[in-house]
Amino acid sequence: MSSTVGQVIKCKAAVAWEAGKPLVMEEVEVAPPQKMEVRLKILFTSLCHTDLYFWEAKAQDSVFPRILGHEAAGIVESVGEGVTELAPGDHVLPVFTGECKECAHCKSEESNMCSLLRINTDRGVMINDGQTRFSINGKPIYHFVGTSTFSEYTVVHVGCVAKINPLAPLDKVCVLSCGISTGLGATLNVAKPKKGSSVAIFGLGAVGLGAAEGARLAGASRIIGVDLNSGRFEEAKKFGVTEFVNPKDHKKPVQEVIAEMTDGGVDRSVECTGNVNAMISAFECVHDGWGVAVLVGVPHKDAEFKTHPMNLLNERTLKGTFFGNYKPRSDLPSVVELYMNKELELEKFITHEVPFNEINKAFELMLKGEGLRYPAFKSCSGIIEKDGERLELEKKRMKFRAIAF
Amino acid sequence: MSSTVGQVIKCKAAVAWEAGKPLVMEEVEVAPPQKMEVRLKILFTSLCHTDLYFWEAKAQDSVFPRILGHEAAGIVESVGEGVTELAPGDHVLPVFTGECKECAHCKSEESNMCSLLRINTDRGVMINDGQTRFSINGKPIYHFVGTSTFSEYTVVHVGCVAKINPLAPLDKVCVLSCGISTGLGATLNVAKPKKGSSVAIFGLGAVGLGAAEGARLAGASRIIGVDLNSGRFEEAKKFGVTEFVNPKDHKKPVQEVIAEMTDGGVDRSVECTGNVNAMISAFECVHDGWGVAVLVGVPHKDAEFKTHPMNLLNERTLKGTFFGNYKPRSDLPSVVELYMNKELELEKFITHEVPFNEINKAFELMLKGEGLRYPAFKSCSGIIEKDGERLELEKKRMKFRAIAF
Repeated sequence: MSSTVGQVIKCKAAVAWEAGKPLVMEEVEVAPPQKMEVRLKILFTSLCHTDLYFWEAKAQDSVFPRILGHEAAGIVESVGEGVTELAPGDHVLPVFTGECKECAHCKSEESNMCSLLRINTDRGVMINDGQTRFSINGKPIYHFVGTSTFSEYTVVHVGCVAKINPLAPLDKVCVLSCGISTGLGATLNVAKPKKGSSVAIFGLGAVGLGAAEGARLAGASRIIGVDLNSGRFEEAKKFGVTEFVNPKDHKKPVQEVIAEMTDGGVDRSVECTGNVNAMISAFECVHDGWGVAVLVGVPHKDAEFKTHPMNLLNERTLKGTFFGNYKPRSDLPSVVELYMNKELELEKFITHEVPFNEINKAFELMLKGEGLRYPAFKSCSGIIEKDGERLELEKKRMKFRAIAF
Repeated sequence: MSSTVGQVIKCKAAVAWEAGKPLVMEEVEVAPPQKMEVRLKILFTSLCHTDLYFWEAKAQDSVFPRILGHEAAGIVESVGEGVTELAPGDHVLPVFTGECKECAHCKSEESNMCSLLRINTDRGVMINDGQTRFSINGKPIYHFVGTSTFSEYTVVHVGCVAKINPLAPLDKVCVLSCGISTGLGATLNVAKPKKGSSVAIFGLGAVGLGAAEGARLAGASRIIGVDLNSGRFEEAKKFGVTEFVNPKDHKKPVQEVIAEMTDGGVDRSVECTGNVNAMISAFECVHDGWGVAVLVGVPHKDAEFKTHPMNLLNERTLKGTFFGNYKPRSDLPSVVELYMNKELELEKFITHEVPFNEINKAFELMLKGEGLRYPAFKSCSGIIEKDGERLELEKKRMKFRAIAF
């Protein structure tokens, strides 16, 4: 048993002291895990736009000081009271949303929106006692979506931890904690295209490329990428995208363009931009009789989805998904296996690396993405390597995918 | 073989000469069936509001003179060239929409919207030659939705004829050609409630009661009827409705009322009014995570379905259906068997009978339904008995369900 069990651990963490200001590498104290909590040693973390969004805190209130980060991989250091499914040494992915296994959602085969541990971006404390586990000289440092992976050690509710194959390379599978699984699951679990079918993907960012990867895995014969940036098509081909439509190249609505390309509409569509007009197009471009449109992108709070009801009555289906309908604990291990079996290709999602000490560079690189014309830079995935103990973790640079969608 | 094969048959038919004027019982000539057509002796027909709608032709162009009628049961008199699946004497239900078995829709497991034989209310002729099979002294009398069952004999495309169990009582199963199957299938085939689940039914007319019957058959434990006419609840209980909500009795939106009644929302909802606000309520009253809302009612052409996309992203599903997703030839025989096995109860859908000669009385009774406060009288199902040869067809009165929804 590690000598740290039951003790406060002092380690490095990148603290966001205030909105939009560079993170500061601090020595933080990480309290032991309480009831139903585990303390993790984070070995790799990647950067997602949601981290940037709550760091900038322009459109949304955020809590400061806070340790951001939610796409990561690590090893269990110790477990709190009542934790029986995890033990020190287990390889895990922390996840921003949880699975208590006891609520109506967890008991439903159809839902992954756990009542107890559903994502909460406002809460900066643990649910057991309403306190933080991080502090600096007694001053509390707040959590972020229950994960706070921009720290060498973090405390997470057991329901937000997926135990994975210990042979999986953590510097790769760390990107499965959020965006890529979201897109992948949207296609595989919700849209469920059949082999040989046609799929339109709206938005070719990390989530959209995850959705395209899902369509490729499902054996779709036509994967139509839709994006306002034609420059993305070339790279999207790696993810199985076979055709490209830039709505700006056409006078008629993109749903009509796609219907003409596909003899009435695609079999499935997956919307990964969050733009409500793209959502409407994604719905209206699916074939009547059997078409299924899946919404993934998070919309503006004032957005309104509008369509003529006949588009529904003609037997189209409209669904939304959260985290690709994956139940974190039950389902993520099988996604890791998809990668281990060389079906799912994760390497192509990873484009940059930076050392943890230089995490602000990752933020800068992501911010540069905002220079892309449209849509606004929205998400990226990458890896920040930590000072891991495991010898195979050699690369000392942060990797991330700085791609807009 | 009947002596009428290959001959023109003279018989009685109720002809709609012009919009809104009483039907006139005429002797019409019914030509033999052509390629892929069958000629049917109609024994029972019921009256649906769609007949009334195209007879009134207030909001919609219609074709005159025309023989209306589309809910019926009969016996094959003769078959045209290429018809191999049906033979004289077969007991059948003609259906307003078809199944060619060869188009992409028919080949899809998910669709029943046959490209060749999808409902067409504008067309008054047969597709084989663009001509009518009905005439009076050489003057063409037009068809209605390919069925024209207000005639002792009619000609129908083979793709619009379901061959059923010859033991099934035609005076009962004739009501399965349209509204009741539409509601029943919306629940059983599309909403698919699990045993013990909760289902909300919007609109307690014939279609909505069909949907409730489906929920009852599926073993739903709570079936919540929603209607602006509280008087309908008592009768709806016969169809399995356990609770009733009249939106007029509440200040808050009905979706909120239902969410409060059901700890967050019903598992399934089925919308059978065609009112777009009811559609929105039906969608928003289903539970996040797993709720499925199914739209059945046909909306106004200018209607717009609006909702906040988060209602979808929280894992609700919105679907529409046409004829309950039943493929007429493949699936209707099994619906008849549901009745034969005493699972589906059809008797309670039938409220009136009139003789065929007095068919205008049925229209009058249905029109009186418009006096109901709200929603406008929309549909009814019933039976007009014809001069059948079969001894067991004794009742000489039209039966129909004059109930608004």
